[in-house]
Amino acid sequence: MSSWLGVDIGGTSAKLGLVDAAGRLHRRAAIPTGVGVRAEALVEALAGAATELAAGDALEGVGIAAPGFRMDTGEGVENVSNLPGIDGFPLRAALELRLGCPAALDNDANAAAVGEHLFGGGCDVRRLLVLTLGTGIGAGMVADGAVVRACCGGLGDPGHIIVDPGGERCACGGRGCAEATAAVPAILRHAAEYAGRAFASPAEVVDAARSGDPGAHRALQEAGRYLGMVLATLTHVLGPERILLGGGGFDAAEELLFAPARETLFGCVQPFFGRKLTLGRATLGNDAGVIGAAALLRTLPGATAAPHRSS
Amino acid sequence: MSSWLGVDIGGTSAKLGLVDAAGRLHRRAAIPTGVGVRAEALVEALAGAATELAAGDALEGVGIAAPGFRMDTGEGVENVSNLPGIDGFPLRAALELRLGCPAALDNDANAAAVGEHLFGGGCDVRRLLVLTLGTGIGAGMVADGAVVRACCGGLGDPGHIIVDPGGERCACGGRGCAEATAAVPAILRHAAEYAGRAFASPAEVVDAARSGDPGAHRALQEAGRYLGMVLATLTHVLGPERILLGGGGFDAAEELLFAPARETLFGCVQPFFGRKLTLGRATLGNDAGVIGAAALLRTLPGATAAPHRSS
Repeated sequence: MSSWLGVDIGGTSAKLGLVDAAGRLHRRAAIPTGVGVRAEALVEALAGAATELAAGDALEGVGIAAPGFRMDTGEGVENVSNLPGIDGFPLRAALELRLGCPAALDNDANAAAVGEHLFGGGCDVRRLLVLTLGTGIGAGMVADGAVVRACCGGLGDPGHIIVDPGGERCACGGRGCAEATAAVPAILRHAAEYAGRAFASPAEVVDAARSGDPGAHRALQEAGRYLGMVLATLTHVLGPERILLGGGGFDAAEELLFAPARETLFGCVQPFFGRKLTLGRATLGNDAGVIGAAALLRTLPGATAAPHRSS
Repeated sequence: MSSWLGVDIGGTSAKLGLVDAAGRLHRRAAIPTGVGVRAEALVEALAGAATELAAGDALEGVGIAAPGFRMDTGEGVENVSNLPGIDGFPLRAALELRLGCPAALDNDANAAAVGEHLFGGGCDVRRLLVLTLGTGIGAGMVADGAVVRACCGGLGDPGHIIVDPGGERCACGGRGCAEATAAVPAILRHAAEYAGRAFASPAEVVDAARSGDPGAHRALQEAGRYLGMVLATLTHVLGPERILLGGGGFDAAEELLFAPARETLFGCVQPFFGRKLTLGRATLGNDAGVIGAAALLRTLPGATAAPHRSS
């Protein structure tokens, strides 16, 4: 069976999987990462896990999704605050050499967008924006078959769009950023404040809201409304036909975030864009990273090797 | 002398000019347009004016800038509310055929960005955003040598980024849009309200502010601060290294808009982007449209014909 290998590098582990031509994930593996991981050791560990996964079959290619900004050469990533050991390392070339097959690399937000575009909930539109809500907020876009590349191979950092001027301080130093109002830490903080008790996860907040806790419910409603404002801004700047929401924070909350976000978005977006726009949920779930990484090899028609290098 | 022809199509006139390899404009012409203009008649009038301008010399190419969204094929523009007669018409192919030289077409916001990138104040940066402030607000971006194409060949419609939720009604139906707070009609309306008398142009508001009229001054300060918020949002989504401001509204007001916009932008933009960002004035002035149109032929290294068609 011919397979592509998808590698999704995260702050605590790297997930690997064999992905077939229809975007189905067949075998999985994971190796630990962490703030102390060194690039060369990571490449060796990934190569070992990949060889085991392939079980004697030849790999057609390897796609790598990594957090941070993609380097302009398409070789590695920059500004990976949670994985400083791979910051600036030519990860693409190293894995290509080590595994002996073509490799493509992009940041995780772009990989998620490419995966949903090819194999998920964005197959049928020309302009797809995928927004991931977790500890932070990430966004990637595919338009007319290509990743939108404005800054370092992708979008800037939409998590710091200001939706509440003069609002709460964000870790970036600004006030009222999207992340400070709608991401998971903000939901936990506000739920604790309104409900008068601590929550360990967004799922706990959601459970409390569903059990009738008005404070937990209010925290989710507020976050959803701010999320809707972020989506409206992204729509006005980028004009997507579809926005898909995903990520751990969103998946836990589902309708409790989705409904206020949708209401806010369609309540304020310009009709020219709003008429064409649909809002939905990312469909690849926990496998989005690995499938999206493998999909990087197939973004451009006929491409088998690193299709995303900048000109 | 080898020359490129630049054609800048506007709501009341189309400007033409011969532009040399250094981006200098040598000869100018203009023909009337207007809401009633038909596409075929416009092509004939442009061809006549072009032939006269060329005065026997062969044209190496013609670049066309037009308002509205570029069609996905790169052949014409859509949604040209002020020039419905050319909406959807294959203007690029028609002029290529009629003039017998390669033609490129893009929307006016992209053309302005390409012109400033090649021949103006953005020559020395990799990521340039050009924002034009007039009756509306337009924006185009060049990153790593290519126009950023998210929606219909460019950016969406940043004039409707919401900077004052719940604020004044915008013509689009929304509230507190960038255009409703910072574009020329908003400046005139607010100056009239605060100063208690009518103004016919932004230059009049500026004169009044410089003569000590506190109402006129306040209107410009407010518009400048909202403009700064728009710039911060665009920076977070797109990550430019430089933003250049231009357009009739901005050129008239100069420092009175620039200073509050700059202060607001750098006061709230995420440090990661703010450290690398410079804010300046577009340098091509009144000729930006024609020079930018001609520059469309030269965006990609070695390109001599329509380099901007979508894949």
